[in-house]
Amino acid sequence: MAREHRWTVRVYWEDTDAGGIVYYANYLKFFERARTEWLRQLGLQQQVLRERLGGMFVVTQAQVSYRHPARLDDQLHVVTAASDVGRATVTLVQRAQRDDGVLLCDGQVRIGWVDAASLRPARLPAALAEALRPLVLPALGENGT
Amino acid sequence: MAREHRWTVRVYWEDTDAGGIVYYANYLKFFERARTEWLRQLGLQQQVLRERLGGMFVVTQAQVSYRHPARLDDQLHVVTAASDVGRATVTLVQRAQRDDGVLLCDGQVRIGWVDAASLRPARLPAALAEALRPLVLPALGENGT
Amino acid sequence: MAREHRWTVRVYWEDTDAGGIVYYANYLKFFERARTEWLRQLGLQQQVLRERLGGMFVVTQAQVSYRHPARLDDQLHVVTAASDVGRATVTLVQRAQRDDGVLLCDGQVRIGWVDAASLRPARLPAALAEALRPLVLPALGENGT
Amino acid sequence: MAREHRWTVRVYWEDTDAGGIVYYANYLKFFERARTEWLRQLGLQQQVLRERLGGMFVVTQAQVSYRHPARLDDQLHVVTAASDVGRATVTLVQRAQRDDGVLLCDGQVRIGWVDAASLRPARLPAALAEALRPLVLPALGENGT
Repeated sequence: MAREHRWTVRVYWEDTDAGGIVYYANYLKFFERARTEWLRQLGLQQQVLRERLGGMFVVTQAQVSYRHPARLDDQLHVVTAASDVGRATVTLVQRAQRDDGVLLCDGQVRIGWVDAASLRPARLPAALAEALRPLVLPALGENGT
Repeated sequence: MAREHRWTVRVYWEDTDAGGIVYYANYLKFFERARTEWLRQLGLQQQVLRERLGGMFVVTQAQVSYRHPARLDDQLHVVTAASDVGRATVTLVQRAQRDDGVLLCDGQVRIGWVDAASLRPARLPAALAEALRPLVLPALGENGT
Repeated sequence: MAREHRWTVRVYWEDTDAGGIVYYANYLKFFERARTEWLRQLGLQQQVLRERLGGMFVVTQAQVSYRHPARLDDQLHVVTAASDVGRATVTLVQRAQRDDGVLLCDGQVRIGWVDAASLRPARLPAALAEALRPLVLPALGENGT
Repeated sequence: MAREHRWTVRVYWEDTDAGGIVYYANYLKFFERARTEWLRQLGLQQQVLRERLGGMFVVTQAQVSYRHPARLDDQLHVVTAASDVGRATVTLVQRAQRDDGVLLCDGQVRIGWVDAASLRPARLPAALAEALRPLVLPALGENGT
């Protein structure tokens, strides 16, 4: 399984605003869809997780840098990778690139596992942690001499 | 209690699209917010209804005519009135007007009461029906000779 | 070219609401994305249309019936077909079905061609009308005895 | 003029997701609406700015921490203040609190002035910079020994 997950999305009217570009909050929608597809290709469907494990992921932190605007009809590639899997949270690095390779925006999103009823933070179920840990990107310089 | 309920909303960046105007689906958001405020001024909070009565409203039909576009910074007045209260559904007529009185869009929305767990249609609770019936607009021509 | 255009969309968190189902206005987003893909497969990119012809489509009427709710992770098939191409407007019938064939919602959307700067209704450019007319569904009963 | 600007928003169905809470990207919508109202009370309407000065603000960075979830019908108070006004960008600190004072989320958003046609970064017009500078919050510790 590749550590970097790629997922493609098209920019529609709903994504743009009167400035003629994609509205800034909508990149967080693209990022969330990509995280969902990243989990799905690991066999982890969120509706199923909730029914079986009684929990769900919620975002606890998000940080985004907007580099270049995207426009109607653009095709974006969202790249997702895990940078850390902790006891109760998973940290992802995500970016959106245009077809021609131009970086549009990039950021880091931390998601935390919570009990679905109480919404209280909870320890990541072992099965989830074990599925996600092997995907964590090696830290920069970790392999250095 | 006035039969026509008025509620004001401002057009923000998120509401517009690259055509420079409010995206068509967003009028349904404005209409839904207005219905929620219409219910609230009747003392009907939807989260409370759900907890007490175990049900909620879902939209079963919507019909909208778009007359004039709205733009960033416009202030819209959404007018809401009930045109029918049935056994399981309520029909509303709604319209959005600009500050200067120009009609932007109008339509009709039917909402149905459903069991919150099964989502199956259910009879409108008596307390709800009694609160809503007196607000129904007289039918056109009903008072005619 | 098939007269019925099919396009698939997944339900993500952003599409749902606290009722656990897809928020009613979001079907209009799905319908709009499907219309955009329907135009694209005819070689009609909207950003390009605007630059070359100085116009764009805006929705003038929408009518939707909600039959069954969709939920997180559902895969929907949106079917789009033209039912009429007039001098200045195109009428489409659209529906969303679940993977298992259950009809979730269906409706009719009328789009009108407008000058992109003034937003005034304008005659459909000949090239557009000619591309779209052959796709119009035969009226019900048209082939009758 | 108070340095901290307060603006109130209600949570509607559209803001929530199937987890029963406000969808994480929607806080960025609330923050944007609050920034727009913050500018408006300074006499700065964005549509007017664009027509007169040929430019607009776009977000270049956003950073949000999600502390507690908000739910349907909650009333949120969004507090906005400028923490820096540079040559081409303005940095704001923003937070959303519930009616009972509980902090729901807070963050920092940097907006940059761009030419509306080319979207290229541009120097903040003098009139804008002069209107915004007096509002900048004193840096933490600035008044120290």
